[in-house]
Amino acid sequence: MELRRKDLLGMADLTAQEIGLILDTAASLKEISQRPIKKVPTLRGRTVVTLFYEPSTRTRMSFEIAAKRLSADTVNLTVAASSAVKGETLADTAANLQAMQPDVLIIRHQASGAPHYLARRLRCGVVNAGDGLHEHPTQALLDLLTIREAKGRLDGLKVAIVGDILHSRVARSNILGLTTMGSRVVVAGPATMLPPGLTALGAEVTHSLEEAVRDADAIMMLRLQLERMGQNFLSTLREYSTHFGLAPRHLGLAREDVIVMHPGPLNRGVEISPEVADGPYSVILEQVTNGVAVRMAVLLLLIGER
Amino acid sequence: MELRRKDLLGMADLTAQEIGLILDTAASLKEISQRPIKKVPTLRGRTVVTLFYEPSTRTRMSFEIAAKRLSADTVNLTVAASSAVKGETLADTAANLQAMQPDVLIIRHQASGAPHYLARRLRCGVVNAGDGLHEHPTQALLDLLTIREAKGRLDGLKVAIVGDILHSRVARSNILGLTTMGSRVVVAGPATMLPPGLTALGAEVTHSLEEAVRDADAIMMLRLQLERMGQNFLSTLREYSTHFGLAPRHLGLAREDVIVMHPGPLNRGVEISPEVADGPYSVILEQVTNGVAVRMAVLLLLIGER
Amino acid sequence: MELRRKDLLGMADLTAQEIGLILDTAASLKEISQRPIKKVPTLRGRTVVTLFYEPSTRTRMSFEIAAKRLSADTVNLTVAASSAVKGETLADTAANLQAMQPDVLIIRHQASGAPHYLARRLRCGVVNAGDGLHEHPTQALLDLLTIREAKGRLDGLKVAIVGDILHSRVARSNILGLTTMGSRVVVAGPATMLPPGLTALGAEVTHSLEEAVRDADAIMMLRLQLERMGQNFLSTLREYSTHFGLAPRHLGLAREDVIVMHPGPLNRGVEISPEVADGPYSVILEQVTNGVAVRMAVLLLLIGER
Repeated sequence: MELRRKDLLGMADLTAQEIGLILDTAASLKEISQRPIKKVPTLRGRTVVTLFYEPSTRTRMSFEIAAKRLSADTVNLTVAASSAVKGETLADTAANLQAMQPDVLIIRHQASGAPHYLARRLRCGVVNAGDGLHEHPTQALLDLLTIREAKGRLDGLKVAIVGDILHSRVARSNILGLTTMGSRVVVAGPATMLPPGLTALGAEVTHSLEEAVRDADAIMMLRLQLERMGQNFLSTLREYSTHFGLAPRHLGLAREDVIVMHPGPLNRGVEISPEVADGPYSVILEQVTNGVAVRMAVLLLLIGER
Repeated sequence: MELRRKDLLGMADLTAQEIGLILDTAASLKEISQRPIKKVPTLRGRTVVTLFYEPSTRTRMSFEIAAKRLSADTVNLTVAASSAVKGETLADTAANLQAMQPDVLIIRHQASGAPHYLARRLRCGVVNAGDGLHEHPTQALLDLLTIREAKGRLDGLKVAIVGDILHSRVARSNILGLTTMGSRVVVAGPATMLPPGLTALGAEVTHSLEEAVRDADAIMMLRLQLERMGQNFLSTLREYSTHFGLAPRHLGLAREDVIVMHPGPLNRGVEISPEVADGPYSVILEQVTNGVAVRMAVLLLLIGER
Repeated sequence: MELRRKDLLGMADLTAQEIGLILDTAASLKEISQRPIKKVPTLRGRTVVTLFYEPSTRTRMSFEIAAKRLSADTVNLTVAASSAVKGETLADTAANLQAMQPDVLIIRHQASGAPHYLARRLRCGVVNAGDGLHEHPTQALLDLLTIREAKGRLDGLKVAIVGDILHSRVARSNILGLTTMGSRVVVAGPATMLPPGLTALGAEVTHSLEEAVRDADAIMMLRLQLERMGQNFLSTLREYSTHFGLAPRHLGLAREDVIVMHPGPLNRGVEISPEVADGPYSVILEQVTNGVAVRMAVLLLLIGER
């Protein structure tokens, strides 16, 4: 079976069968990163361009490592100080990059929909590495792979997603992907951080962390974006942490084989206690490892030999 | 035939035969970027260092992609915040880089003549990727390749170069290269943007866009460097655009197979209307594609096996 | 013989036998960088991550070139604007990087001991590329290689280290490495720039440049970190240069085959006169060349096939 797509833009587009294909492919590629020679020639001579409108992050690194382990050539462009300053439009920047004949463009952009806009205009593949508050599909795919590895399946699970759902493209992509795969998703957070329309996406909504994690198979804690918080910072933080910070006592409410996830970077002591983050239920670092495998799978399925 | 040079510093240095050799080589390498496996082993084990005293740009990317498609190793150094801050001289920085035994150093620097200064001191090859207001030879070479592809020749053509000639190393390198190859070059722009000495370079000068484009085989629009414009910004811009912005009506004055070029990034609606930039006469993206091919040719001719 | 270590953290850890092994390995690898095809497949499929908490420098480039000449894949992360801004701890950043399964992490950090802290927590190798005022072992190793090449040995030599010893991790690592190898080290500098405890490290201390360089086999001038100097800048600088700047007249005091070294970047006319820096006794660029060889050796010994 193959992925009949030019682009990976969001979990909203993917069928259960396509998600399954990506996860199966990732699972089979994962072993490459454990070899002494972590490299296969599959994408030799392919050109992978990363176009990040935010400073270099670990997502960029994860894609770069994934590409290199498949022997693709990678070129990085961070556009803080470059063409964006010169007033060039996104479409022109992308058309220019495409004219250098890359096979795939991996884009992170602060505007929701930017990758979709480019995908319609470019012949080369486009992978969304995070667009505004919209989607971050490879993060959701690595989360799904991590849950599936731990549980053996995705359907029929209860997954709690906790925190600032409103500002989280990670939450949004996970809700879409998990519900497509048959998981039940319960989101929890302060009222101000829960956008309308979550039920339309297929999630159940609660204001109680306890309720969300009760009998959960997996708990996904979101990063509190401290940089968004204004005045009254400390009191808000303390209150947030009291009500929505995951602590060891919460884990007793969940299923006994619960896993705890976080997309990173962690705010230790804010949305997650160090005891939980470093404890036996945590699969946070496994998520990172699976990130490389999922990105290898996406690159392989999009631009590998058919 | 081979290029008996250690460095590529400017179009002023190149004979018609040398330019022809570079263009022929680029034309033959272009096909590599259209293969599924866009890579040949020609420069395997060569080290290409880019040294950019300006933030990372597409010129850097174009060189990096060119080097990788020939299997060279590339290392990038952007020197905004690095050694330049520490007060090291350019000569010391370059001597240090050379001591790491690269095969070629690709330099962009705000000072005219910086690459020439280094070329005299270094054993390794030096490629000028833009020096101050002086030269940008690989840009001129890709422009020449683009014109030659469209017209089948360079001699006897009329090429219009329009805009801020004074601040354009692209214009300067193109005037030198085009006249060497037998083209007639007519430059147009506001009086304040035309430096003295253009006729000595071999160009004809006019203050009228219409006159420049009349019967032209190729029209090269320059980027208006908005960052240089001071007060009265908008009125100046409007006036500039009225007199020197290329619009569809101008194309009727040119030859019917005219091509429209621009080195990018575009200021849409300033020096070029969107209709023209995206229209059937535009070869702007072909220029970018040819940029990779020309840079592959330059690297191959400078540091390939003799 | 092999290096039975996971990490290279400092010269303080290394025995004379280990240093000898690294230098011998570097000497044998040096020839690779002189070939037309400067590349061997030894570390193919290994992943080398550079994690620099300072802007990209030549040390990063030197490691990157070393890794590429051994065919390893390299990924660079400069953490000024990235996760550090988001408040992630160093341990979390490093654990995340490790989860992407690199073979070795090369770290530069402003905090002394940061690489040691990580080395204890990570399974992958850690190389200290400079930690605060503490150590910079690959710089000391390249210095030792340079001296050994010039003199044929290290034991019984007199090496002068001159300048701001207090703020120099280069001085510290060299004192440790040189004394381990049997050299006699004499340090000189203004009283304010000489930390207590130098004699405990094995160095002799003087306040006189003349005394330090008398009969020296090698003179190592340190960079004056002008960015640390406050008010009275110029008078201090003039005074410093008068008393501790190396000029041609000093070389007559040293052994006639003396070599002059500097870790770069140079402050010409401050700690070293241009005549000396560019003169026949200078091995400053040889140090840079040896830097690539020493880093190749370290990578090979740490992560190569056993």
